[in-house]
Amino acid sequence: MSTVAAYAAPAAKAPLERTTIERRPVGESDILIDIKFAGICHSDIHQAREGWGEAIFPMVPGHEIAGVVTEVGAGVTKYTVGDRVGVGCFVDSCRECEYCRQGLEQYCAKGNTATYNALDKNGEPTYGGYSTHVVVDENYAVRIPDSLSLDVAAPLLCAGITTYSPLRHWNAGPGKKVAVLGMGGLGHMGVKIAHAMGAEVTVLSQSLRKREDGLKLGADHYYATSDPKTFEELAGTFDIILSTVSAPLDFAAYLSLLKTDGALVNVGAPEEPVSLNLFALLGGRKTLAGSMIGGIAETQEMLDFCAEHGFGAEIELIRADQINEAYERVLASDVRYRFVIDTATI
Amino acid sequence: MSTVAAYAAPAAKAPLERTTIERRPVGESDILIDIKFAGICHSDIHQAREGWGEAIFPMVPGHEIAGVVTEVGAGVTKYTVGDRVGVGCFVDSCRECEYCRQGLEQYCAKGNTATYNALDKNGEPTYGGYSTHVVVDENYAVRIPDSLSLDVAAPLLCAGITTYSPLRHWNAGPGKKVAVLGMGGLGHMGVKIAHAMGAEVTVLSQSLRKREDGLKLGADHYYATSDPKTFEELAGTFDIILSTVSAPLDFAAYLSLLKTDGALVNVGAPEEPVSLNLFALLGGRKTLAGSMIGGIAETQEMLDFCAEHGFGAEIELIRADQINEAYERVLASDVRYRFVIDTATI
Repeated sequence: MSTVAAYAAPAAKAPLERTTIERRPVGESDILIDIKFAGICHSDIHQAREGWGEAIFPMVPGHEIAGVVTEVGAGVTKYTVGDRVGVGCFVDSCRECEYCRQGLEQYCAKGNTATYNALDKNGEPTYGGYSTHVVVDENYAVRIPDSLSLDVAAPLLCAGITTYSPLRHWNAGPGKKVAVLGMGGLGHMGVKIAHAMGAEVTVLSQSLRKREDGLKLGADHYYATSDPKTFEELAGTFDIILSTVSAPLDFAAYLSLLKTDGALVNVGAPEEPVSLNLFALLGGRKTLAGSMIGGIAETQEMLDFCAEHGFGAEIELIRADQINEAYERVLASDVRYRFVIDTATI
Repeated sequence: MSTVAAYAAPAAKAPLERTTIERRPVGESDILIDIKFAGICHSDIHQAREGWGEAIFPMVPGHEIAGVVTEVGAGVTKYTVGDRVGVGCFVDSCRECEYCRQGLEQYCAKGNTATYNALDKNGEPTYGGYSTHVVVDENYAVRIPDSLSLDVAAPLLCAGITTYSPLRHWNAGPGKKVAVLGMGGLGHMGVKIAHAMGAEVTVLSQSLRKREDGLKLGADHYYATSDPKTFEELAGTFDIILSTVSAPLDFAAYLSLLKTDGALVNVGAPEEPVSLNLFALLGGRKTLAGSMIGGIAETQEMLDFCAEHGFGAEIELIRADQINEAYERVLASDVRYRFVIDTATI
């Protein structure tokens, strides 16, 4: 066991504060990571404020972790000291079910072990990346390519894979028209990735406020969803709409923007049930789908893809003592486009 | 123009009664069909009673038509007098859009011309199959294989293709677990077709009342959805759930029965919007999809498939003067499994 510094929410809705936590000893297949940067994901806030149900406190959020390996267990074969690595939304899974065997650990039949706000196999709480160090099984870490800076790589571990996986799964690429709904932490990665995959990319955002950014990141078109003409003009246009928003939407209106056989894929989701007329799916054989992060192998593939195309996330680097303020700014959609904590300031 | 006998609803919600209607002259690419049998689809009732919005009266319902060609236009190349043919849910489409060109006329970008309760390209109302004759462009008719009796073939033109098309599209076949939700006109065809495709078939019906029939038609398993244990036992089981019901469902409960990457495909749909928690789609990358009948080529493929596997629909043959009574029995789910009108009795 080692005692390390961290930022934690001591209770639901309480501000995060500096504290210390215990990390487990480095086991046979574990690596110890010196965390350099940790991204702030909207879901950190949901969980720290118990928006998604009862949570475990104290809570150290953070599942967008980038750092350097400083110690390896005796049985570790994939990493050596000095390697640049990342950890995403989960740190373990059953490793035996049909999904784990297919590299779909995110859909582990027994449920995977979340990076924080969960209990590990020994019943100990997991603590996330708002911390100086973490111990992780080598099979649940990924390698960060040398050409990617660790700060802009950190958000790829959640925002990157969450958008990359469904874009791959639903075959975004040349000849496909992809709309990205929402221009936040997830959305801006969706634009970059869909563009790099060769798709024709349209941003659908509430306003045109971030239009210039969107075009710079690779969007071919940019429309405001607050303008009813958008829905007339774009009717029947898209093969894929990637929805990154958590607010309730008029789903029938967005489904009307799909071509026949198009898919509206949700990676964000409102906490409350939405209302949907199923006839919006029948005409045009449309699908309303969901997707949740990605598996370990696919996360590695995504990092390699981003490195190959020369991009990470667009970030605002902050000190640890700015986390609470950053949370408020995330809730106000006032971030371009991901806050990343410099963990040297913890 | 020729005057032919028909059964029509003179106004919304009025009982159907015998009448005469005009059929257009046999044009260059038309065939005149001596209708032998016409199936009664639940949607006939929805439309005759204006459940789906304003309709055109008098209305001659019927889009499950089986008959024999008795006259062909000068330019007709596909059919000759004496051929056994069927007509389904539409009798024309734009023929030019990307969907028509792909054989997806059911999703014609300009909207196809429904077999009844629609206006054709000349602005004339279309009249359906509860009639002795119909004139149809040869490109919107299909050939009924010799080995299929016309009476059991008629319902294939809607109930058959409506279930065949999504089962093909979502890859029902050997190694796949398919649930058919609802054991009515559509559902019983879903069971037969999914079984013939080689899938392992489970019926999910409100009660076990039709269990014996279900197993006889090819189901491997039969569960009552009124029993909460069904949802525990079958959690995470199916690749495809084909929902043929029009009643509002607890969609989250049915989505929980899907495997990762599974699809809940709706061919029935409630008139009212349904409530859905999107988290039920995210975990397991699931899809909620819709499907609407099928194209002309696929309808031909379906008829050939049914003939090859030696089955049509399970029917109750009725006289035309029993139509109104049959409507009440359809609404009471009291039909095994499709009423078919012997049009010789009109």
